[in-house]
Amino acid sequence: MEKDSTRLKKNQNIQMARIGKAASKLFNKKGYLETSIADLASAVRISKGGIFHYFPTKNEILYFILTNYMDLVLEGLEEDLKKFEGSFSRIQFIISRHLELYTNNMDEAKTLLHEAHSLPPKYLKAINEKEKKYFQIVAAELSDLLGNNVPKDRLTAITFSLFGICNWIYSWYNPKGSLTHHELSEIIYNIFSKGVSSWKL
Amino acid sequence: MEKDSTRLKKNQNIQMARIGKAASKLFNKKGYLETSIADLASAVRISKGGIFHYFPTKNEILYFILTNYMDLVLEGLEEDLKKFEGSFSRIQFIISRHLELYTNNMDEAKTLLHEAHSLPPKYLKAINEKEKKYFQIVAAELSDLLGNNVPKDRLTAITFSLFGICNWIYSWYNPKGSLTHHELSEIIYNIFSKGVSSWKL
Repeated sequence: MEKDSTRLKKNQNIQMARIGKAASKLFNKKGYLETSIADLASAVRISKGGIFHYFPTKNEILYFILTNYMDLVLEGLEEDLKKFEGSFSRIQFIISRHLELYTNNMDEAKTLLHEAHSLPPKYLKAINEKEKKYFQIVAAELSDLLGNNVPKDRLTAITFSLFGICNWIYSWYNPKGSLTHHELSEIIYNIFSKGVSSWKL
Repeated sequence: MEKDSTRLKKNQNIQMARIGKAASKLFNKKGYLETSIADLASAVRISKGGIFHYFPTKNEILYFILTNYMDLVLEGLEEDLKKFEGSFSRIQFIISRHLELYTNNMDEAKTLLHEAHSLPPKYLKAINEKEKKYFQIVAAELSDLLGNNVPKDRLTAITFSLFGICNWIYSWYNPKGSLTHHELSEIIYNIFSKGVSSWKL
């Protein structure tokens, strides 16, 4: 039988995840600053006090959403990359994984893009560190692909070009439209990998 | 001699441009919602009444900034494209022009990206129509480059991939760093054009 404390913790996690999900939807629809705890309480169907029980401030909710999303982005990435042979297949995996994460967590991904700047500095720093880690993993793969002799400022530009193609989909791509995220990730991989490898020659 | 009404109009335009410039700087630094007319009046060193004389609401200032920036993006673009032979050189021109506009108008470009959603629907629609026109001009060039037989959803994905690379520079590129905007535009053109043309084969 489960211990009471384990069950309590599990229930708490479920409630926090529910609040986080509803909040990320509202933040995207209305904006973070314009969303009140009352709006959120009504969306989750609990009292304002119920929200405050889990999150003392609105900042804490935003941080909870963004830190969980970035943990998802980083979770197991380095281990998974080791399973692929050759840097092209690793880049292909990175693109397809990035698009899949977006498709499955659109509200959280858009909140990260549009609202991270509203976090207090201490929290923003923690999120930026996770983003930096993701950037470094991807940049290392691209450096490997390009032969490890690309000047740092160019490697940065190339890495952010890939992030640009992948992240810009937040502004236009509808996963329910005619293009599946597998097809889109193939288009992006084709443009990017062939562009980068021709340039290398 | 200048007529009084012409001189008045000219002075008015100068004042509006000054207010718009200061406002786009503040909107980027503090956020549109968090910037008050009092903040703006103090930055421009005129009275709050002076601001209201030119712009009855804060929305009007945001619209003024964004519509002027989009006019700059569209101004003469179609005529200039006619001067280039071959779709590759036209795409190269589009990328280099996009980056130059950004470098010279960073505050306005970032305000477009981060704050357009705060516009009232009527104004937002007008801005979206100008963005759509820009998209269509670029998509037509890419369609030409790819042989005019690319399915519409793929052409959309390819066009937004280019916008993604170009617009994402707002989040990382510092024109005062080691990479000039000419060098960056060359890197982007190389990745994108070679990626797209290899894929075409």
